[in-house]
Amino acid sequence: MTTLITNIGELTTNVSTAEGDRVGTLHDAAVLIEDGRIAWVGAAADAPGPSTGSGTQSGSGIPTGSGTQDVIDAGGRAVIPGFVDSHSHLMFGGDRAAEFEARMAGQKYAAGGIRSTVAATRAASDDELRARLRGFLDEMLAQGTTTVEIKSGYGLSVVDEERLVRLAAEVTSEVTFLGAHVVPVEYADRPDAYVDLVTGPMLDACAPHSRWIDVFCETGAFTVPQSRRVLEAGIARGLAPRVHASQLGPGEGVRLAVELGAASVDHGTYLTEGDVTALAASDTVLTLLPGVEFSTRQPYPDARRLIDAGVTVALACDTNPGSSFTSSMPFCIAIAVRDMGMTPAEAVWAATAGGARALRRDDVGVVTPGARADLVLLKAPTRIHLAYRPGVPLVDQVWKDGVAALAGSESDRATEEHGSLTR
Amino acid sequence: MTTLITNIGELTTNVSTAEGDRVGTLHDAAVLIEDGRIAWVGAAADAPGPSTGSGTQSGSGIPTGSGTQDVIDAGGRAVIPGFVDSHSHLMFGGDRAAEFEARMAGQKYAAGGIRSTVAATRAASDDELRARLRGFLDEMLAQGTTTVEIKSGYGLSVVDEERLVRLAAEVTSEVTFLGAHVVPVEYADRPDAYVDLVTGPMLDACAPHSRWIDVFCETGAFTVPQSRRVLEAGIARGLAPRVHASQLGPGEGVRLAVELGAASVDHGTYLTEGDVTALAASDTVLTLLPGVEFSTRQPYPDARRLIDAGVTVALACDTNPGSSFTSSMPFCIAIAVRDMGMTPAEAVWAATAGGARALRRDDVGVVTPGARADLVLLKAPTRIHLAYRPGVPLVDQVWKDGVAALAGSESDRATEEHGSLTR
Repeated sequence: MTTLITNIGELTTNVSTAEGDRVGTLHDAAVLIEDGRIAWVGAAADAPGPSTGSGTQSGSGIPTGSGTQDVIDAGGRAVIPGFVDSHSHLMFGGDRAAEFEARMAGQKYAAGGIRSTVAATRAASDDELRARLRGFLDEMLAQGTTTVEIKSGYGLSVVDEERLVRLAAEVTSEVTFLGAHVVPVEYADRPDAYVDLVTGPMLDACAPHSRWIDVFCETGAFTVPQSRRVLEAGIARGLAPRVHASQLGPGEGVRLAVELGAASVDHGTYLTEGDVTALAASDTVLTLLPGVEFSTRQPYPDARRLIDAGVTVALACDTNPGSSFTSSMPFCIAIAVRDMGMTPAEAVWAATAGGARALRRDDVGVVTPGARADLVLLKAPTRIHLAYRPGVPLVDQVWKDGVAALAGSESDRATEEHGSLTR
Repeated sequence: MTTLITNIGELTTNVSTAEGDRVGTLHDAAVLIEDGRIAWVGAAADAPGPSTGSGTQSGSGIPTGSGTQDVIDAGGRAVIPGFVDSHSHLMFGGDRAAEFEARMAGQKYAAGGIRSTVAATRAASDDELRARLRGFLDEMLAQGTTTVEIKSGYGLSVVDEERLVRLAAEVTSEVTFLGAHVVPVEYADRPDAYVDLVTGPMLDACAPHSRWIDVFCETGAFTVPQSRRVLEAGIARGLAPRVHASQLGPGEGVRLAVELGAASVDHGTYLTEGDVTALAASDTVLTLLPGVEFSTRQPYPDARRLIDAGVTVALACDTNPGSSFTSSMPFCIAIAVRDMGMTPAEAVWAATAGGARALRRDDVGVVTPGARADLVLLKAPTRIHLAYRPGVPLVDQVWKDGVAALAGSESDRATEEHGSLTR
């Protein structure tokens, strides 16, 4: 069986065009889904119907289904690729609402607050962590996120870090070992001994469940030499590097990330000209996290300057209880447009294809034959509404690997009202 | 039949306490609903059950139902009063996404853009306007808004303004006649003749459908003398005044509103010390509209200064296609906390009780016996999450006049899983 989404008023494909449209916008478009993958993309008028045979239509190269086809009428509304959220910390217990409230009343954000979440996380059972994780994933899916990276980093002991990456690996292939999130209290006066632990027994326990190695390279967290040790140890174990850097002030973390070929360096609230030049000349993505600046009242980085300089920019939510408890990619897009100087098209690209680049993935974040059928139908005629209508839940339906994930969508109801649209 | 919402972890009543908690927070609380009104509020342990008779429990003064009671388990989560959105423009055709996109790329906002929406509104049929309105109301309800004021102002002819207030009156009792929104192109060179129309035949046609008279008192819209004429004509016809002022620059609109005893003056982006003093000494509410500053990149007004000076502050969305297309009270609360210096409790008060004050209503915005049973159950343990988790859809269930309005809430599912909780 195939699914045809047709009457799409505006389709963002992220396949750049010869005319210079980097997000490859199509109007009056359709997308054919087969076996969880995109099978065809084009003008609605040219959309392939079901055939009685299998394989491709004679001479056309257009794949067809096995005779039945679900047809979804997008009603002239916009479809975008599912969001690829390349930076999240979903494995934790408790929250820090009171700390947030105090910060909004004037208290400054400091990395040390992470330790209170460490205590709550260590105290939570596996099933409690799983239930919490499932809640976040449902919430993200309802907001259009179809791929999510998940970090450890609130365990900070061998047994707890192993637990976090293992539980994360139950729901995503994008697991990041972040034992080097902050130095735990029990190692407060001997941080290098903690780095020994992270690069030794903790890495041994976590590497089998992880794809990525990460470190928070920042004053108050890990020094540049410590960060290098962590990343190099992970690389030696087959993990690919990514880095938290320049969140609280300028530093050398960005340059370290570029030097080690990190897929992404994340935060970048405080970048030097040298950082920008190094990023522009590299394959390292800069992942901006607007929720962090929002929730800590830090200055927003100037994405306009970065993009104009040739840096590849991604957007992610950084969902975590301390510095950014949003899980809303639409919210991050709205802030990126309003406060970081991105155009709506650039922000949507950064939250989809940009996230995919930050994870070195080419099967998501793009609507093209062969890619995963991860798609979002908006309750809006254009992706611009994601910034134009901040805070409004605009996701009508989400397809993950070709399967409609949300109950009660308007497109479902329209199909019911019109009777079967199978043709 | 009665409905008991129990196991409420944090209940915001907006009934100020002797201990100085203006939002009257209760923990481990319950609310009893009977005939669409709040019948009882208190500790969950003291909640009244159903009786076999009617009337009140012997000697207790506690009202009881006619023998059956629906019990909703809030699961320790937070309940707040339904949002009272005291400023919206939901009667219009088209949108201005392209104008928004251009503005984000550097173009300045000007009041004249209203005219493009006037053309689209005049071209729309009654049924098109009704369908659009219904879509906005559904969207708002899903975000926790249970009372909404609706303005005309995109018709700007007698027939079109009458149409807008008449259609708005089909769905709300809070209808505002805003014929004096902007001078339409056909009167561009004779604005006083347009004021003659507004205060004459247009007012005659619109007053029967309206509760409020409003004017946009601002450079580029209406002068202070013109605004006074509009408001006084409305007052003479039995309408109560409210005013748009100080959105684009300082002016005398706030003072005019206070002088005429307006229920609310809205925007207040640019306030003078004299404005603040006048407001603090008055019964006029200042309604802040964070979506406007967000969507036009104007400076956020300092709500902290206003509240500390004794001004009564409300929050509203100002949903409109030009300057603020959000309909999300949670988003406005998040911005008010992050960028206007309000505490989460103050922002929630402003979006509920504050909105009620701005509409001179005492039956909404408060959880106390006799008030309408308009309640919101959050997917969160505390109202702080409305600011702490920006953009995340946190509304689990909404009761409007005691009736659960949203399908598929977590509280519904919990009730199903646990079997009937009727006791």
